[in-house]
Amino acid sequence: MLERIRIVLIGTSHPGNIGGTARAMHNMGLADLALVAPRCETLTADTVSRASGADALVHDARTVDTLEEAVADCTLVVGASARSRTLPWPMITPRALGERLPEELAGEERRVALVFGREDSGLTNAELQRCHAHVHIPTNPDFSSLNLAAAVQVLAYECRLAWLAQEKAPATEPPEQPLASHEELEHYFSHLERTLIAIGFHDPATPRQLMARLRRFTLRARPERMELNILRGILSATERLAPRRGDD
Amino acid sequence: MLERIRIVLIGTSHPGNIGGTARAMHNMGLADLALVAPRCETLTADTVSRASGADALVHDARTVDTLEEAVADCTLVVGASARSRTLPWPMITPRALGERLPEELAGEERRVALVFGREDSGLTNAELQRCHAHVHIPTNPDFSSLNLAAAVQVLAYECRLAWLAQEKAPATEPPEQPLASHEELEHYFSHLERTLIAIGFHDPATPRQLMARLRRFTLRARPERMELNILRGILSATERLAPRRGDD
Repeated sequence: MLERIRIVLIGTSHPGNIGGTARAMHNMGLADLALVAPRCETLTADTVSRASGADALVHDARTVDTLEEAVADCTLVVGASARSRTLPWPMITPRALGERLPEELAGEERRVALVFGREDSGLTNAELQRCHAHVHIPTNPDFSSLNLAAAVQVLAYECRLAWLAQEKAPATEPPEQPLASHEELEHYFSHLERTLIAIGFHDPATPRQLMARLRRFTLRARPERMELNILRGILSATERLAPRRGDD
Repeated sequence: MLERIRIVLIGTSHPGNIGGTARAMHNMGLADLALVAPRCETLTADTVSRASGADALVHDARTVDTLEEAVADCTLVVGASARSRTLPWPMITPRALGERLPEELAGEERRVALVFGREDSGLTNAELQRCHAHVHIPTNPDFSSLNLAAAVQVLAYECRLAWLAQEKAPATEPPEQPLASHEELEHYFSHLERTLIAIGFHDPATPRQLMARLRRFTLRARPERMELNILRGILSATERLAPRRGDD
């Protein structure tokens, strides 16, 4: 189970935090690290010092340009978020996240990403809206910003506890239908937006959070691959009915 | 409740870890920090950098020479321990520790210390035997040594969760009888050892873990102050019967 949990760091500024993250991950039995557009050199003396023997995880980490690439194959994407947003999103506690993991990872093709934002500004709204859910580590409201590696430590600890509990519990049946991957969902959202524009329902110049609301609704439902295929079939059929640009 | 939880760091070598500890504590709403015989300067640029705004906790920290001084007024002393020892001691999980805290801290005079050892060698056996219980953070057996501030982060997180849960739960009745403080317990153990030597039962030259076993037994019972007074009365009475040195 633990080998199918990926830690994703976006736009990290301090190599020490990458090292601290690697150490926290290895301590808890996690190994899959992805770095999205880091804003620093990722392997420095600071990295190695804070990793304290776990720098192999940084060597093995995948460095990519976008969140998309980092989580394309994941069936559940959870963003660590300190803030409540204008558009409320499904919010879970670290403990509830841990409790969900055995079921979320019951099938071999399942993969979970835990996404952490920049040291200074966290995740953008666009990044948060690519997540199925947000996880908030409870903190002192007067001093709420955790160190990045400390936040990874807390969630990785909950992952390990969930795994230990599950080792003792009877096996969860894998679901019959595979869930849609993040990449399939994003293709669907692009298709949906294109279609809504084509039919004159959506104007990207005045978006009024339409796509965000549709994302939230869809992600909450955890679509199966087959369901997404049906939805995309509907979109294709709809597109064919829409007036072509320059037609009328 | 949180204001009566003390974090005790023994023999810390890296100022950055003291700063990281302060940040983790302040994030989780803890404020009481004690430093026992630190092996580094405690307030350096590294401390302030890792504390990231929480360095007031280091300014306010008490620096003392011995564990005794740091926990004298505490009614529960829990040592963070990675290793299983020759003499097994009551061992609890971080979660179980959190669940115990509301009751442990139900009376105003109650105070809990969480004790963390040196970065390189942890707590000594003598220090571990001064604890009522040991807490072990579950880790990857192949890479089990957590960063000091990361270990504080995990336990402080469990403290906060316990506090949040307790805020919602009905109040726990404070116990009728005050528990013995650490200092009272240590006076008792000194008295006990003196008495056992006086009556010829205990030879400090061949201790065979006698005192450790008696400590473990006594601490497990969580003696009330009044019970300890009774035990000390028994010791005094026994001492009076023992042959004086040089008598026989």
